[in-house]
Amino acid sequence: MKVSIPKGTQDFLPGSAVLRKQVIETLTRVFETYGFEPLETPAFEKIETLTGKYGDEGEKLIFKILKRGDEGKSGESDLALRYDLTVPLARVVAMYPEVPRPFKRYQIAPVWRAERPQRGRYREFYQCDVDVAGSTSPVVEIEILTLASQVYQALGFSDVVVYLNHRQVLKGLIAAAGIPESREIEALVTLDKLDKIGVEGVSKELLERGFSDEQVTCLQGVMALAGDGGAQGADNAGLLEALSGRVGQHAGALGGLENLRIILEGLKSAGVPEGRVRINPVLARGLSYYTGAIYEVQVEGLTSSVGGGGRYDNLVGLFSSKQVPAAGISFGLDRILLLMQERKLLPEKGCRTQVLVPVYSAELQPDALALASELRAAGFRVDLYPEAGKLGAQLQYGSARGIPYAALLGPDERAAGEVTLRSLSDRSQERVARETLAAILASRLG
Amino acid sequence: MKVSIPKGTQDFLPGSAVLRKQVIETLTRVFETYGFEPLETPAFEKIETLTGKYGDEGEKLIFKILKRGDEGKSGESDLALRYDLTVPLARVVAMYPEVPRPFKRYQIAPVWRAERPQRGRYREFYQCDVDVAGSTSPVVEIEILTLASQVYQALGFSDVVVYLNHRQVLKGLIAAAGIPESREIEALVTLDKLDKIGVEGVSKELLERGFSDEQVTCLQGVMALAGDGGAQGADNAGLLEALSGRVGQHAGALGGLENLRIILEGLKSAGVPEGRVRINPVLARGLSYYTGAIYEVQVEGLTSSVGGGGRYDNLVGLFSSKQVPAAGISFGLDRILLLMQERKLLPEKGCRTQVLVPVYSAELQPDALALASELRAAGFRVDLYPEAGKLGAQLQYGSARGIPYAALLGPDERAAGEVTLRSLSDRSQERVARETLAAILASRLG
Repeated sequence: MKVSIPKGTQDFLPGSAVLRKQVIETLTRVFETYGFEPLETPAFEKIETLTGKYGDEGEKLIFKILKRGDEGKSGESDLALRYDLTVPLARVVAMYPEVPRPFKRYQIAPVWRAERPQRGRYREFYQCDVDVAGSTSPVVEIEILTLASQVYQALGFSDVVVYLNHRQVLKGLIAAAGIPESREIEALVTLDKLDKIGVEGVSKELLERGFSDEQVTCLQGVMALAGDGGAQGADNAGLLEALSGRVGQHAGALGGLENLRIILEGLKSAGVPEGRVRINPVLARGLSYYTGAIYEVQVEGLTSSVGGGGRYDNLVGLFSSKQVPAAGISFGLDRILLLMQERKLLPEKGCRTQVLVPVYSAELQPDALALASELRAAGFRVDLYPEAGKLGAQLQYGSARGIPYAALLGPDERAAGEVTLRSLSDRSQERVARETLAAILASRLG
Repeated sequence: MKVSIPKGTQDFLPGSAVLRKQVIETLTRVFETYGFEPLETPAFEKIETLTGKYGDEGEKLIFKILKRGDEGKSGESDLALRYDLTVPLARVVAMYPEVPRPFKRYQIAPVWRAERPQRGRYREFYQCDVDVAGSTSPVVEIEILTLASQVYQALGFSDVVVYLNHRQVLKGLIAAAGIPESREIEALVTLDKLDKIGVEGVSKELLERGFSDEQVTCLQGVMALAGDGGAQGADNAGLLEALSGRVGQHAGALGGLENLRIILEGLKSAGVPEGRVRINPVLARGLSYYTGAIYEVQVEGLTSSVGGGGRYDNLVGLFSSKQVPAAGISFGLDRILLLMQERKLLPEKGCRTQVLVPVYSAELQPDALALASELRAAGFRVDLYPEAGKLGAQLQYGSARGIPYAALLGPDERAAGEVTLRSLSDRSQERVARETLAAILASRLG
């Protein structure tokens, strides 16, 4: 008999589940520091809530749920697993107009996509999202980007850069290059590859796609501003200046540039270090629903982003007659964890339990139970071995689990009113008076 | 356009999501105090992992997922949403023999069942499970029941009772009544209704099901021991004594009674108050996979249980050639929350954010940003209103969200190096020196 789990999914055994919880707790703490409150939505939505939101390619990846026997013909589907947390949020905003706005929520939860599984890409993965619905103020973006900077600082990263751009500026640049609106997305998707394939690669692909020499030359000028690898050519102010010279009188683009200027100014007031946020004029982001500022968090030496988002002022309107502007950011838990482990910002595995109470003999089992109760009442996380005897095996078990200490009560210890406190990592041990055990353990565990 | 969520599912808006998180944190804390570590498994399993585990009725309630386009004929299903957390645990135990045993894990996660939705019964709901795999020792049950007692104490309940019984004892009682093994489950399911329909109701149903007068009389003797409403007739020791007089030489039942005696003895050593755990000789629990001690947590005045579980020594063997004994308990989050709110153990709604920073005017927006940054750096959870002006509306928003305080920086305050600290609940306010704001807030928030 062979047991297995569905392809593209993972079990997180305690050693790694503990680390995931730890990172989620850090994210939660930062999200709440910025005034975001938790929201929970169902794992599945009505199928019509999800369709028409993710483009043709995305839509193919939605997991559909079969109708139950008495509810429809076999093979029909009326529900689907959520594909992201943004569309459920838009549904919630449309459904509960009574919720105070701006509505600031975070949600840390799994989403499901039927992608072809490959290294680092899963069919079930966690998204960690914060969004603000109900305000067009640039303060929303300022707060979101300050939070992003804070999140990575709290996790221990010192070298993150947030790249910032604006959909309306991109529109202006595309229009200035003489590219019709119908081909805008195609041009953007190609431009977005600059950090992967360079100016030459992007130019080649643009020409292959049938863009004219003149159009490509114009976009090369934009790429030159971005610098070859997508890294920055000039400082933010210089870039905004250069871009304003390229968008002509395109009202949207000029508004977008002013919006970016205000955001950068606000980030200074909020105390975000200069250089942490950089304008990247070719950053486009895949999703088509963005309407304003867009951003992506990059870590030095890693081409794929560890977080990203933007403003989407028209999404809620798909669920309601009333339009509600919104902006947000999404952090990828799996990628963050992978990177933290590569950088040794996390131990290889975690263990929450602090003390093992072995059972010396069947006769001393009640004493072991009482000792465990005592330590738990003092606030420690304690495992009691359930079977008496074979002390070596019990200590081996504690050590394999990663429990740092064992508190052993044998007949000698009992007679003397003492306990043997043993370090399961370096195997050192000492006898301590039972009434001092809690204090000694507390100081050892820090 | 009408938006809605799938029937039987719920959105938890911040006010209630905060309270859910709070209860989950309490459960987690107690689970970890007893040495349990977190486990995460995928939301869906291969369909063959779930089939054949929940009986015919249960199996009909499993949500199946459609195969993706290129992976099979349309209408076929190869995955299904998990129905509980026990079967995925059994799969994990079978799949990773290298994990140290006894394997003690908790999992707090949603499960899905296509039940007919009704008040208090949902298609998506959270289970909070602890289980121990790899030991037959009664210490496992002692620890689980001590933990259950502790969980409810930590949540604020003073009147929980854990009812305890044993599948082998039930087997012995059924055999002693002359009922063949093939009809055992049927008899148990009927007996289990004692607290709902009384001795008369159970007797009537047994007769209707074709059990003989003699068999029914015999089971009435067992019901008399339980007391009419399932409440206890005699004390635990007296009940065990009376039961041993009824099971004859049935070896399993005699072993079961000894097992219960050891468990009750151990609960004393662990410091669980007498009377908190009571033998209930008709407690049967629905699931067929239990093999040893079974238990259910009841709260005074509520007929349905708020938690329950038992020993299931044969479940892992369905996934592996090697049998691994196990026992556990499951707590129902929704029922716990409902009950806590009925008893006013929780506020009506929760809010994590502590301070609102309104924006007095566009000119003072940078100051508001800086003040918010300052308070956040001091560790407070702070919301910054994103738009300037209309101070009344901003304070109204903070109050509607349930934020307790607002820290306002107007032109006068700025000139004086002060901040107005306003209570959003009683509308009192005072001017305080900016450098003392954090200390005053900390003492106000406790």
